[in-house]
Amino acid sequence: MSRVVKLAVIPGDGIGPEVVAEAEKVLDAVTDGADVAFEKTRFSLGAARYLETGDTLTDEDLAAIASHDAILLGAVGGMPGDPRLKDANIERGLLLKLRFALDHYVNLRPSVLYPGASGPLADPGDIDFVVVREGTEGPYVGNGGSIRTGTPHEIANETSVNTAFGIERVVRFAFAQAEKRRQKLTLVHKTNVLVHAGGMWKRIVDEVAQEYPGVAVDYLHVDAATIFLVTNPGRFGVIVTDNLFGDILTDLAGAVTGGIGLAASGNINPDGAFPSMFEPVHGSAPDIAGQQIADPTAAILSVALLLEHLGLSDEAQRVTRAAREDIEARDGSARTTAQVGDAITARLRA
Amino acid sequence: MSRVVKLAVIPGDGIGPEVVAEAEKVLDAVTDGADVAFEKTRFSLGAARYLETGDTLTDEDLAAIASHDAILLGAVGGMPGDPRLKDANIERGLLLKLRFALDHYVNLRPSVLYPGASGPLADPGDIDFVVVREGTEGPYVGNGGSIRTGTPHEIANETSVNTAFGIERVVRFAFAQAEKRRQKLTLVHKTNVLVHAGGMWKRIVDEVAQEYPGVAVDYLHVDAATIFLVTNPGRFGVIVTDNLFGDILTDLAGAVTGGIGLAASGNINPDGAFPSMFEPVHGSAPDIAGQQIADPTAAILSVALLLEHLGLSDEAQRVTRAAREDIEARDGSARTTAQVGDAITARLRA
Ligand SMILES: CC(C)[C@H](C(=O)O)[C@@H](O)C(=O)O
Ligand SMILES: CC(C)[C@H](C(=O)O)[C@@H](O)C(=O)O
Repeated sequence: MSRVVKLAVIPGDGIGPEVVAEAEKVLDAVTDGADVAFEKTRFSLGAARYLETGDTLTDEDLAAIASHDAILLGAVGGMPGDPRLKDANIERGLLLKLRFALDHYVNLRPSVLYPGASGPLADPGDIDFVVVREGTEGPYVGNGGSIRTGTPHEIANETSVNTAFGIERVVRFAFAQAEKRRQKLTLVHKTNVLVHAGGMWKRIVDEVAQEYPGVAVDYLHVDAATIFLVTNPGRFGVIVTDNLFGDILTDLAGAVTGGIGLAASGNINPDGAFPSMFEPVHGSAPDIAGQQIADPTAAILSVALLLEHLGLSDEAQRVTRAAREDIEARDGSARTTAQVGDAITARLRA
Repeated sequence: MSRVVKLAVIPGDGIGPEVVAEAEKVLDAVTDGADVAFEKTRFSLGAARYLETGDTLTDEDLAAIASHDAILLGAVGGMPGDPRLKDANIERGLLLKLRFALDHYVNLRPSVLYPGASGPLADPGDIDFVVVREGTEGPYVGNGGSIRTGTPHEIANETSVNTAFGIERVVRFAFAQAEKRRQKLTLVHKTNVLVHAGGMWKRIVDEVAQEYPGVAVDYLHVDAATIFLVTNPGRFGVIVTDNLFGDILTDLAGAVTGGIGLAASGNINPDGAFPSMFEPVHGSAPDIAGQQIADPTAAILSVALLLEHLGLSDEAQRVTRAAREDIEARDGSARTTAQVGDAITARLRA
């Protein structure tokens, strides 16, 4: 009896469907003949669905998605400035709602400069770190509001909510990663300004560090961290940080490792209470949608993270290796989205 | 009768006194024989003062500083982890207290890649933009707190406070800058997540933009902005952004333009109700203090911003030109802090 994995697939908007098609191609190829079968359910969600039905993510959608073992997501979000989307917030109403409802408290974002990939740095060094971004707290909680809205007397507040419970669980995950990776953990925050939230992060990292005497721990303010990401990214092993700082640092990290066309991520619920969700770091890029010019590598590497999360390490490594080889073999000539997917699939089958 | 400018000088901690000494040298040289005299008062403030007296910034200090026409600051902050500073927050209690009490609502940070300066980017292009960072609101207001502090049930909140009044005045300043510089203004925020604060920023920028039809306006999420800062920094003219995003972006911008040893800043009260304060973007770097290896150029370029602010444009331009020439002439050989100051002073007098 082979294992069955129920996979929810959310292609989304813009280039989402194009890159997901290639990610599925790779997933199919790597599991072809293996002792595991992926049973896929496709969910039509995103700006397109909203424009059609007015729904962003219904309770039924959420319940249906939650009944799966894992989720593969492309990208969601319509054309910026589209007046029909003025009152919709696809990001908050769909993407963040999934992350929060499914308790994806670890947002895992590896940053590797693969041989052959070229970023903007003259001397990038050996970049191979992972950002463990908290996914369910901080300034992302949506606890904001405004009064006298739209007037010259408007006041708008946004509250960052941080809990010891929430920080400890993600910090423990990060230390476990650091044990396997360079034995080095860097906390990034802004403790000198956000003294309450920052102080708690610092305290909890110091406490958990006691249990990991082999892991070297340091601390950087978020502003200083951006400097090191461009002057010495090789210094990092694991970065653990809050939701907003993690958002910023991982886009920058993606850029220095060859562009967000290569950056994969997992929104993980390590407890297994809810399905984890894997997605490229990039957005839906509606301006280039449908042209077959998006790089599907980030989506394909997200499949590798998905396989690893499901315990299918061999398959994960095969996907990563094939993508790596493809990156290394690039000579700058243009390929369509499908051609990149086909090339990686061919390497997998070879 | 020559004009007298009352200048408060706060050398501060670490490398602060070393770089301020060179900045003063340059200020003295450029005003030598001019129709303006600087009357300086020196304030001993910072970690060293705190350790001696327990005071960070007394009401008397603040009143005395406020009675000056302008302020030159080096850097403040003790050795990180110094147990004697455990209960002090020199940054909040001194630097931020000055910025807030003196209503420095514009934190002006030019980013220029000077000929001869080398940053980490392989192909930086023509970098010449200025960040107008809001200085008195946002997550910096200090409206945070925690309950059950130090326990596994701790909750720590940080509130970002944003007002239409506060945003409009800094946005107006930014548009006026954009008129003089590339006719291009980019708002950076995170409107898709921080919908209330971000929405207000967006609305006010759109409103003020009506009055500046010649200025091209665009918007970037903060995460995307970090990507452009390393892949295409030449695209920017004026960036206007909130206190925290501005903090992060200006350190990164400093790095890409040759390091924060060159990055100057002004904390400005454009209304003139309070003295404005000029300081290098870098910190006190206690690890290299007293070794005469810090680059005083950022402090010297901060003097140029100070002169410009005081309406002494000729003097400001002479300082900038001398610093520029010095940067261009660098050949990588080591110079002491004083040697750099002397070299720039010599160019000024030439
Ligand atoms: C689309 C947006 C809400 C999201 C985030 O801010 O988390 C994105 O930038 C990301 O990093 O996945
Ligand atoms: C020292 C710190 C409080 C300060 C800030 O965050 O504003 C510094 O980083 C800066 O950019 O001037």
